[in-house]
Amino acid sequence: MNTTSIFLRLINRTRKIYPINSISFQSAGCRCSSAYAASVSQIAKERETFQDAWKGIIDNLTTNKKFTQLPELGSWVKKVLEYNVKGGKKIRGITTVLAYELFEKPENVTEEMVRLARVAGWCTEMLQAYLIMNDDIMDGSSTRRGVPCWYRMPDVGLGAINDAILVYGSIYEILKIYFGKAKEYADILDIFNEALLYTSMGQHLDYAMAHRNKQDYSLFTTERYYSIVKYKTSYYSIKLPVVLGLILTQNRENAPIEDIEGICFEIGKLFQIQDDFMDCFGNETVTGKKGTDIQEGKCSWLAVNALQRCNDAQRTLFAQNYASKDPDDVASIKRLYEDLQLPKLYKEQEDEIHSGILKKINALPSSTSPAIFFKLLDMIFKRSY
Amino acid sequence: MNTTSIFLRLINRTRKIYPINSISFQSAGCRCSSAYAASVSQIAKERETFQDAWKGIIDNLTTNKKFTQLPELGSWVKKVLEYNVKGGKKIRGITTVLAYELFEKPENVTEEMVRLARVAGWCTEMLQAYLIMNDDIMDGSSTRRGVPCWYRMPDVGLGAINDAILVYGSIYEILKIYFGKAKEYADILDIFNEALLYTSMGQHLDYAMAHRNKQDYSLFTTERYYSIVKYKTSYYSIKLPVVLGLILTQNRENAPIEDIEGICFEIGKLFQIQDDFMDCFGNETVTGKKGTDIQEGKCSWLAVNALQRCNDAQRTLFAQNYASKDPDDVASIKRLYEDLQLPKLYKEQEDEIHSGILKKINALPSSTSPAIFFKLLDMIFKRSY
Repeated sequence: MNTTSIFLRLINRTRKIYPINSISFQSAGCRCSSAYAASVSQIAKERETFQDAWKGIIDNLTTNKKFTQLPELGSWVKKVLEYNVKGGKKIRGITTVLAYELFEKPENVTEEMVRLARVAGWCTEMLQAYLIMNDDIMDGSSTRRGVPCWYRMPDVGLGAINDAILVYGSIYEILKIYFGKAKEYADILDIFNEALLYTSMGQHLDYAMAHRNKQDYSLFTTERYYSIVKYKTSYYSIKLPVVLGLILTQNRENAPIEDIEGICFEIGKLFQIQDDFMDCFGNETVTGKKGTDIQEGKCSWLAVNALQRCNDAQRTLFAQNYASKDPDDVASIKRLYEDLQLPKLYKEQEDEIHSGILKKINALPSSTSPAIFFKLLDMIFKRSY
Repeated sequence: MNTTSIFLRLINRTRKIYPINSISFQSAGCRCSSAYAASVSQIAKERETFQDAWKGIIDNLTTNKKFTQLPELGSWVKKVLEYNVKGGKKIRGITTVLAYELFEKPENVTEEMVRLARVAGWCTEMLQAYLIMNDDIMDGSSTRRGVPCWYRMPDVGLGAINDAILVYGSIYEILKIYFGKAKEYADILDIFNEALLYTSMGQHLDYAMAHRNKQDYSLFTTERYYSIVKYKTSYYSIKLPVVLGLILTQNRENAPIEDIEGICFEIGKLFQIQDDFMDCFGNETVTGKKGTDIQEGKCSWLAVNALQRCNDAQRTLFAQNYASKDPDDVASIKRLYEDLQLPKLYKEQEDEIHSGILKKINALPSSTSPAIFFKLLDMIFKRSY
C-alpha cells in the first residue's frame, strides 16, 4: 500500500461522515474535464481500498465454524476464491460501494456502512466468479483474466462445477456473517437470487441460440439480441450492484426504482456490445481471454449486425464459416466483419447508446442523485478490457 | 387417484385442523405392527397428495412475470424441472411435510400450512435435482432414476450446468412467491443456503478423495468417511427437510435443535451407507441408476470397510483394480467385497446404526415429538432403492 492510500485510510478512520457525495454531477451537459478527473481518481482510490478489504472477508469466512471442522476445506475454498475472484476490473464491486455512497444522503454515510458496502460489493464479484467458472466450462474456453480457466488447472477438471458452487455458497455465508441481523437482510438475499435466476435464463437463451439448427439465423435479430443481453448481463452486472448499494441506504423507500432499472438495462447493453466487440477485436493481452464467440456460434452483436448488412454471397460465406473451430473459418468471419465495417458501426452505436443513457439519467427526478450512473459510465465507456 | 384418496382430500378440505399428530409413537420399544402399518399408510397417502401439489407450483412459477416476458423460457424451465425432479422416492419432500405436521401442536396444524409445507418440500426435491444434475456430470454417470442423465440428452450436453442453475434459481423464486411475506422467510432462505454450502463442501471432499494420488488409501478411514457423509448427505437430505418443517411450526423457539441435528446426522449415515451399498450391490432396475463408485475410486463405505479387512494380497488386488473403468477390474473389486463378506457386515451395521438412532430418539425431551424420526426410519430402513 502506498503512503497516499495509508493517509486516506487514516482520514477515513478518524471521521464518521464521508463527503463523497459532494462530488456529484448535476447534469451531463456541464461535465468539465476537472470533474471527470476527480471522478476517475475517486474510482481509482475506491479500487485500491476495495481490494484491501478482500483479505479480511476471506479470513472471516474461512475461520468460521463451518470451515474449521475440517481445516483443509478452508484452505481449498481460499485457493478457489483467490484464483477465481482475483483480477478483472471489479466494476460490479466498486459500483456497489459507490452506489451506496452516492445514493445515500451525505450526512448518513458512515464508515461502518461503507465497510459493509465493500463486503456486499465483494459478493457481487464472487457471483461473477461463479458465473464465469461455469461459463468457461460450457464454452470450452481456455483462458480468463490472463490465466488458464479454473477447470483447465491440473487436478481440477469437472470438479470445477462443484468448486463454483463452493464460491456461490460462500457468498451467502458472507452475507449471513455481515448482514444476518440487518433489517434489509432478506432484501439483500432477494436481489442476489433474482440476479442468479435472470442470468441463468439469459445464459440458456444464449446457449440455445448457439446450439440451435445451424444455417438458420432467422433468430439473430437486434430485438432478440437485446432481450438476451438484458437477462444474461444487465441484471447481475449492473442492476445488482446499483440496487444493492441503494438497499444499504436509508433513502430507498421513495427511489424511482423503475427509472433506475431502465438506466441499468441501457448501461448493460453498452457493456455487452463492448464485450462482444472485444471478444473478436480486443487485444488478448489486454482483455486476458481468448474469444470464442465465433467458434461457439454465439448470437453476438457482431453476428447480428453482420447479418443485417451482408449481401447474398456474404450471407452464404457467414453460414458456411460461422460456428466453426477451424482457425481459417474464424479468420474469414473476422474479415467479413471488417469488410462490413462493423468496427466503425460499433463506435457509432457505442456513442449512440451512451447519449441515450445520458438522456435517461437527466430525466431522473431531482430527489435522486444521478452520480452513480456517471461513475459507471466513467468506468466502462470506451473501455478496452 | 383412487376413491380413498379423493375421500381423504375431501375431509381435509372441510376441516381446518389435522389430527395427524395423534398418530405418534411415544417410544421405539412399544411400536407394534399395526402402528407400523398406520405409519406406512400415512406416508403413502402423503406421497400421493404431495405429488398432486407439483403441477400447481410449476404453473405458479412459470406464469409469473419473470418467465412470461419470453414464453419459451417458461416452457424450457418446465421441461427441465419435469425431467429432473420427477421420479425418486421423494423422501426429502415428504419428510418436510411430515416434520411440519408432527412437530406442530395438533391444534395449530392448518390446511394452509400443510399446503405451504408441501411447497417447501418440493423445494428440497428441487435442491436434490440440482445437486444430482451436477453430480452426474462430474461422475460421468449414464442413467438416473431409470432414464438417461439430463446432460446426456440430445441438445443438452454441458448446457446442463446452466439448466441446473435454472432449477436452483427456481427454488428461490418459488420460496419468494409462497413465503416472501412470512416472518420466517429469512430463516427458510438460510436453511437452504446452509444446505448448499455444506453439501458442496462434502462434494469437494468426496471428489478430492477420488482424485488424489491413486495407490494411497491411507485417508480411507471410517472417521473421515463419516465426516464426508455428514457434509455431503446429512445436511441437505435429512437436516434440511426436518428443520424446514420445524421452522414452519409455531413451537420452534424451544426445540432442542442440537439433539434434533444429532439424530439427523445419524440418519444421514444410515442413508449414505445404504446408497453406497446399493451403488455396487443394488438391483439396477430397482435403483434406476448404474453404480460408478468403484470406477470413480470413491471413498465409499464398501471401500473403507474392505481396506480394514483385507490381507496383503487382497490389498494389492484392491490397489490394482480400484478406480478403473475396465469391467473386469470392477468385477474383481465386487468379488473382493463378497469374499470379505461385506454384504453381511452391511446388514449388521445397518441394524447397529438403526439401534443407535432409536436410543437418541428416546433421549429427546418429552416436549419434542419424536414421531418424524420414526417416519423417516420407516421410509429408509431396509430400503432397496
